[in-house]
Amino acid sequence: MTEEADHGQTSATHGSRIDAYVDRYAARAAGMVASEIRALFAVASRPEVVSLAGGMPYVTALPLDVVGELVADLVARRGPVALQYGSGQGDPHLREQICEVMRLEGIEADPNDVVVTVGSQQALDLITRIFIDPGDVVLAEGPSYVGALGTFSAYQAHVVHVAMDEDGLDPAALAETIETMARQGRRIKFLYTIPNFQNPAGVTLDLSRRRQILDICNRAGVLVVEDNPYGLLGFDGEPLRALRADDPEGVVYLGSFSKTFAPGFRVGWALAPHAVRDKLVLAMESAVLSHSSFSQLAVGQFLATQPWREQIKSFRELYRDRRDAMLGSLEALMPAGCTWTRPAGGFFVWMTLPEGLDSKALLPRAVAERVAFVPGTGFYADSQGAQHLRLSFCYPEPDRIREGVRRLAGVIEQELRVHETFGTSSPIGRNGVHTPAPDIA
Amino acid sequence: MTEEADHGQTSATHGSRIDAYVDRYAARAAGMVASEIRALFAVASRPEVVSLAGGMPYVTALPLDVVGELVADLVARRGPVALQYGSGQGDPHLREQICEVMRLEGIEADPNDVVVTVGSQQALDLITRIFIDPGDVVLAEGPSYVGALGTFSAYQAHVVHVAMDEDGLDPAALAETIETMARQGRRIKFLYTIPNFQNPAGVTLDLSRRRQILDICNRAGVLVVEDNPYGLLGFDGEPLRALRADDPEGVVYLGSFSKTFAPGFRVGWALAPHAVRDKLVLAMESAVLSHSSFSQLAVGQFLATQPWREQIKSFRELYRDRRDAMLGSLEALMPAGCTWTRPAGGFFVWMTLPEGLDSKALLPRAVAERVAFVPGTGFYADSQGAQHLRLSFCYPEPDRIREGVRRLAGVIEQELRVHETFGTSSPIGRNGVHTPAPDIA
Repeated sequence: MTEEADHGQTSATHGSRIDAYVDRYAARAAGMVASEIRALFAVASRPEVVSLAGGMPYVTALPLDVVGELVADLVARRGPVALQYGSGQGDPHLREQICEVMRLEGIEADPNDVVVTVGSQQALDLITRIFIDPGDVVLAEGPSYVGALGTFSAYQAHVVHVAMDEDGLDPAALAETIETMARQGRRIKFLYTIPNFQNPAGVTLDLSRRRQILDICNRAGVLVVEDNPYGLLGFDGEPLRALRADDPEGVVYLGSFSKTFAPGFRVGWALAPHAVRDKLVLAMESAVLSHSSFSQLAVGQFLATQPWREQIKSFRELYRDRRDAMLGSLEALMPAGCTWTRPAGGFFVWMTLPEGLDSKALLPRAVAERVAFVPGTGFYADSQGAQHLRLSFCYPEPDRIREGVRRLAGVIEQELRVHETFGTSSPIGRNGVHTPAPDIA
Repeated sequence: MTEEADHGQTSATHGSRIDAYVDRYAARAAGMVASEIRALFAVASRPEVVSLAGGMPYVTALPLDVVGELVADLVARRGPVALQYGSGQGDPHLREQICEVMRLEGIEADPNDVVVTVGSQQALDLITRIFIDPGDVVLAEGPSYVGALGTFSAYQAHVVHVAMDEDGLDPAALAETIETMARQGRRIKFLYTIPNFQNPAGVTLDLSRRRQILDICNRAGVLVVEDNPYGLLGFDGEPLRALRADDPEGVVYLGSFSKTFAPGFRVGWALAPHAVRDKLVLAMESAVLSHSSFSQLAVGQFLATQPWREQIKSFRELYRDRRDAMLGSLEALMPAGCTWTRPAGGFFVWMTLPEGLDSKALLPRAVAERVAFVPGTGFYADSQGAQHLRLSFCYPEPDRIREGVRRLAGVIEQELRVHETFGTSSPIGRNGVHTPAPDIA
C-alpha cells in the first residue's frame, strides 16, 4: 500500500509540481495508480510501431456511409429525444433489442432487468460499487482483464486469482479457493469470469464446466459476474450458451456493443437479478444521471435498420483471418521454449516466454524494434505474470501482424542469447508495478 | 441509517420478489435509496400535467437540421476516430475548445488540466470518489443540487449545509461552520458550491463574496468544488467571473454542455489542479475507460462550425421569457404568505410556503390538479426543506408556465383553507424521506 501511494505521489509531482492535496485523498485513491508502462505506450502508438498491444476493434470495417445516414436520420426523426436527458436505466426499446441479442446465447430475459451502461466497464464499476466493501474478496481468473482489476482495486477489493487452463476456469481450483477463503473467514462477494475467448488468455470455458461452476457458486452463495464482450465473436460455429442462461438469479451478465458494433458510442449493459438491478439503476443515476440518449438511440437504430447479424459475421471472418495470421507466424517464427494459446474467437493470444525471460524487461527492447505488446503482470492483482505477455490480433491487418510477430521473435531470440551468455534477463524495467493500465492503448 | 436500509429493502421487494442479496451489498449501498416521490413523477410526466419539476433544457430550440448534418459529416470525415475508443482524459481538441468557453468567465486554463466527463454529474462522482472516505465532511449550500447530494451520500460523506441568502453562500456562516467542524475534529474535504443561478435556490453568489469565500477556504485548507452548469445563462449582462478564475490551485471547476448545447451527448468536464487531474483521469478510466468519442467529437464539431455564442444568447432570451412568465404569474396569483426568489439566470425559482404548509404533502394534491414541482426536502441532506419547493421554468412554454402556476396557486389556497380550519396540513405523505431523486424528471 505504501509503495503504491509513493508511486501516486511520484506521478503527481511529474512536471515538478507538488501535489498540495496529497494528504487529503480518500484511502481508495491509493489503489488508483498510473502504470509505469503508460509512457511506453505513448511511443508504441507511433505509426512505425506494430501494436499487438491494444484491444481496439477494427471499426474501419463498418459501413461508414450507412452509419452516417443513420445518425443524421436519428436527429431528423427523433432529435428532441436523442438530444435530451434519458432515464437512468436506459432506453426501453434498446433494452428490448439487447434481450434479442442475448437470446443468441440462450438467455431469456426481461428488458426490465437490463441496465444500459457507459460501456460494460461502467457495469463493472457499478457492480463493484454496490457489492464491495474494502477488503472484500473478488475471485477472478488468473490472468484476468486489466480494466476489471483496476476497478476492483479502486474499490479496495482483494482479488484472489483462480487457476485456469485451456478449458477455462478450473472448477476444482474454484471450489478449493472458496473453501480456503471460508477457512480464513474472508467474505467473497463475487466471481468475476470472462467465459468466452478470455481477455487476456484467449481460452474458452468448456460447456461441461459451466454447470459445475454455477453449482459451486450457488452452494457457496457466491454471485457470478459473467463478462462477455466477445461471446458473439467465435470463429467456429454457434455462440456458446451463457452461464446466465442457466441461472437467472445467480448471475449478473455484462454485455457490450463495443466489439460487435463500435466502441465510440460506449454502449454496454448489465442484466441482473431484479433486486440487484434496482441498486444498479440508483448507482447509475448517482454516477452519471443517465447514459447518452444519442448513443443509445444510434445503437438502437443500427440494430433496427441494419443486418447486424451479418455485420457480426463479417467481423468474425475478419478477426479469424487475423488470428490465423498470428498463429501461423508464431508457429513459423518463435524460438523454441515459447508457447501460446490458440483462441477460437475474440481478440487475444496469451504467450509464455522461455524460463528466465521477463516480459516487462522485454517491452522497451520490443518497442525499439517497432513492435508492442502488453506484459503479463498487468493481468494479475498479485506479482504473477512476468513470464507472460498478451498479443492482440484485432487491429493490425494480417501482413502487419506477421511483421510484428517477426520483429518480436527477433527480440526474444536476442534476449535468449543474452540470457544464455549471462544467465540472466537484462535488468531494465524489472522493478515491476502490478497495477493495471487501461486496455485500449 | 437503519431507516434508509429498510427503505432500500422495501423498494427491492417491490413486485413481491425477495432480494437474495440483501445481506451482501456494500455498506455504501445503504446510501443509495430510491426517492418516495419517484412514483409520483411517473404520473407527472403525463402530457396533461404541467411539469415545473424537471431540469430539462429546451433542446427543441436547437437547429436540428444543422445538428443532423453535423453528425453525418462527422462520421463521413472522421468515422474511424468517432466510432473508436478514446483516451481517458478526453479528446484534446475538445479540451482546447472547453478552455475557450471557460475564458468567457475569466478562466485561463491549460487544456491539459481538463478532464472530459459523462456530464458534470460524473465529474462530481469522480471528485467524490478520489476525496471522500466514509464520514468525511462535505460543505454545501442549503439547499443544494439533489444529484450532488445523492453522489455524496453514495460515498458515505457527511454533508453539512451552510446558510445562503439572496446573495448566495454566506461567508460568515461558512467561516463559522468550518470552525465548528474543526472544534468537533471533523475532516472537511471540500466545499461544494453552485455560485451562479443556484440549483435549486435560483440565487447568485455576489461578486464581493467570491474573494472572501476563496480566502476562508484557502486559510482552512478546504478545496472548493465550483459547479457551474448555468453560468452562461444569465439574463442580464456579461457572465460573472468564476471562482476558479482567481484561484487555479484551490478550485476544481465543473462545467457542462448540457444546458448550453444538449444533454443528450452527456458531455461535461472538470478543470482541476494538475495533481488532482492526474487522479481524476485514473478514476475516469476505472469508471468507464473513456467517454464516447462520438459524443465528444459531435460537441467539438458544433463548437467549431456553429455560432455557439449566438445559440447561447438565444437560449438566454428563451429562458428569460419563461422566467418572466413564472415571476409574473407568481406575483399575480400566489396567495399571501408565499415568497420566492427572483433568479437572474438559470432554470429555477425557490419558493417558500406559508407557515404550517408542507411541500411533500402538497405534491400528490398538485399532481391531481395536473401540476408538478419538486418538494424542498430532496435538496437537503438533513430534515430541512419541508416548507420549500423548487419550480423550474426551463422546459414548458410561457403559457404552460402560467397555467401551471395558476393550478399550483389553487392547490396552495385550498391547503391554506384546510390549515386554517383544522390547524394542520393534510397528513398524506408527511413521513419524509430526504434522499434525493434524480433531477431530470
